[in-house]
Amino acid sequence: MKKILVPLSNGFEEIEAVTIIDVLRRAGIEVVVSGIPGSIVQGAHGISVVADTRLQNIKEEEFDGIVLPGGDPGYKNLMKSHDILMLVKKFYENGKLVGAICAAPLVLAKAGVLDNKLATIYPGMERDIPRPRDASVIVDGNVITSKGPGTAIEFALAIVEYLLGKAKAIELKNIIVA
Amino acid sequence: MKKILVPLSNGFEEIEAVTIIDVLRRAGIEVVVSGIPGSIVQGAHGISVVADTRLQNIKEEEFDGIVLPGGDPGYKNLMKSHDILMLVKKFYENGKLVGAICAAPLVLAKAGVLDNKLATIYPGMERDIPRPRDASVIVDGNVITSKGPGTAIEFALAIVEYLLGKAKAIELKNIIVA
Repeated sequence: MKKILVPLSNGFEEIEAVTIIDVLRRAGIEVVVSGIPGSIVQGAHGISVVADTRLQNIKEEEFDGIVLPGGDPGYKNLMKSHDILMLVKKFYENGKLVGAICAAPLVLAKAGVLDNKLATIYPGMERDIPRPRDASVIVDGNVITSKGPGTAIEFALAIVEYLLGKAKAIELKNIIVA
Repeated sequence: MKKILVPLSNGFEEIEAVTIIDVLRRAGIEVVVSGIPGSIVQGAHGISVVADTRLQNIKEEEFDGIVLPGGDPGYKNLMKSHDILMLVKKFYENGKLVGAICAAPLVLAKAGVLDNKLATIYPGMERDIPRPRDASVIVDGNVITSKGPGTAIEFALAIVEYLLGKAKAIELKNIIVA
């Protein structure tokens, strides 16, 4: 079974976070939601979610990838976390999936993983990543990026396809009426 | 300021619930999330959300509408609630907005508000509502219905348009990159 880490800090974008978690779990992927710093995290639009565990309990070797939701100030809080930056770098260097949506590709850039990767980002922030490309979702090797809440389902389905294949992604797309 | 009630019971569909709350709040609509029965409610895919208040604290006269997410067993728990059925009926009879997505139009049907309204529902459940129509979103007077997680953004934008006009809905659509 594939296992993905979704770290949430205060100010995360709720549609993005929940769409990633929901769609991946529907696909049979184990998703661990880790709160930073606490176990109850409040989204950018006032929706508080109960995390499964705290970031300090996470062991990178148990996971197949990490996926970051955007949201303001959520992505700034992720960028401020040394632990997150080190984890992203470690996942990337071990060839594991690294995903980010909305403003969160900035976190990947700060961790140094976008230097040789094409990536997309929330409109208007293109100059803040090294190799921007305009698309709803960009898959470049083990790095998957996307634009915002409105592309969250497409992003989550691209992650399902990357981890479990195209047939599974199409099955999910039909089930969720996307 | 418009004010909308979103009741969540255990087993609610997370993408649907969060998309409604997030998009409406982005539009400047006050959204009150009420938990049934408790104040922490667990979604159908294991995501627990902290509600703003409990259903017993709700006064219908303070609201402009009620919107129900789907999810299994979430919609069944809503249908079992006498308070929810009475609230839906009251909102409808007072000409206020009544919305439901996925399997939740069944709750509207049980409350008797779909007898004279066209509505859509999750694919395969069409025979369980009186006047089904196939579309991502159906607006019939003060009743708005939609199909599932993949149509949740379109549904939320239709509610924004109903309450605040087309310009606001288009503005929101651009902001969330939909």
